[in-house]
Amino acid sequence: MAQQARAVATRNAIVAAAAAEFIEHGFAGASIADIAVRAGATKGSMYFHFKSKDLLAQAVIERQRELNDELQERFASSDLSALAILVSMVRALGELMRDDVVALAAMRLAVEVPDDDEDRGPTYDAWAGPTSAVISHAVAQGDLRDTIDPDTLSRFLVAAFTGIQTASFASSRLEDLLDRLREMWTLLLPGIVAPGREHVIPDMLQRA
Amino acid sequence: MAQQARAVATRNAIVAAAAAEFIEHGFAGASIADIAVRAGATKGSMYFHFKSKDLLAQAVIERQRELNDELQERFASSDLSALAILVSMVRALGELMRDDVVALAAMRLAVEVPDDDEDRGPTYDAWAGPTSAVISHAVAQGDLRDTIDPDTLSRFLVAAFTGIQTASFASSRLEDLLDRLREMWTLLLPGIVAPGREHVIPDMLQRA
Repeated sequence: MAQQARAVATRNAIVAAAAAEFIEHGFAGASIADIAVRAGATKGSMYFHFKSKDLLAQAVIERQRELNDELQERFASSDLSALAILVSMVRALGELMRDDVVALAAMRLAVEVPDDDEDRGPTYDAWAGPTSAVISHAVAQGDLRDTIDPDTLSRFLVAAFTGIQTASFASSRLEDLLDRLREMWTLLLPGIVAPGREHVIPDMLQRA
Repeated sequence: MAQQARAVATRNAIVAAAAAEFIEHGFAGASIADIAVRAGATKGSMYFHFKSKDLLAQAVIERQRELNDELQERFASSDLSALAILVSMVRALGELMRDDVVALAAMRLAVEVPDDDEDRGPTYDAWAGPTSAVISHAVAQGDLRDTIDPDTLSRFLVAAFTGIQTASFASSRLEDLLDRLREMWTLLLPGIVAPGREHVIPDMLQRA
């Protein structure tokens, strides 16, 4: 039992170390040996848990999916309006990127785009689908214009978030990420909120 | 004279080959030997032109700056409205990314974010500055709301472009890039165009 707990702890330490290496050097530049050193793992233990760098990347992405699911569950039972949930979720995702090295690494793996690797592509879709559902809900509740196509707005939000995160990482290592996300909403909300619902904008910007 | 022309041709071939390698494998994963093979250059000729991978990345970024300057000059003498210039420039930049391997590679180098390398960071600023000037002009001409802060909108457009390009590269190798940029304007224009100037939006979307 204690042995199993140790194995789980070692595995988690290796995934966190891999995440840090991917952030610093990208997937192509990361070295399994350096990841083992950073995790304080022996070569044997490293090989026991992960036979390849690809499997490490998959573990990082898998962990990010869990975090993403947890984040969505947190809002599933909320009694906020769908638009407030949308804005709050984007902020929560920004906080996750800022605070969790594995979440950030998964995003950077998605941005790096490996050569024809099926397993690292669908990160965008993992966000776009649930986001589109929340947007549909916000249109139905009358907060967003009924001319908005939920898939289009969702795809745009995911791409804009990706770009803002990338630019913020380059300029401030994510220190200004939340400010920049709020700027996005400042520019975007006046054009997507339904006529007659403009009074909700200040509250939304508070949540952003 | 013929020798000099040959040297220039070899150098250009090496830069194009480096761009293709950076796109496929990222900076960290690119190999100088593979770049030489792809360019059909000898080891000696490779070393004569570029002593390191960093210098190759700098050459790619330098070439992208030239293309960027050419693009901006093309619009400098235009008699279009500043808003039409803004929308047209974003489209032209999208076409450049789609059609020019060096421009795309420079963008991907910027996204990859190397460790504390001063020379590859300012790509975002190179776009944000001139974009902000065009936005100021569009505010002064009354097409954009006077509540718009030009630096904020410019920073957002550069980040959104980066993210859209990254997502489009991942999903379709940029085939849908221009469609997605048009979607951005569809969502953004209604909220940034000045009240009473909404009639310009259809024309802007035609240019997008």
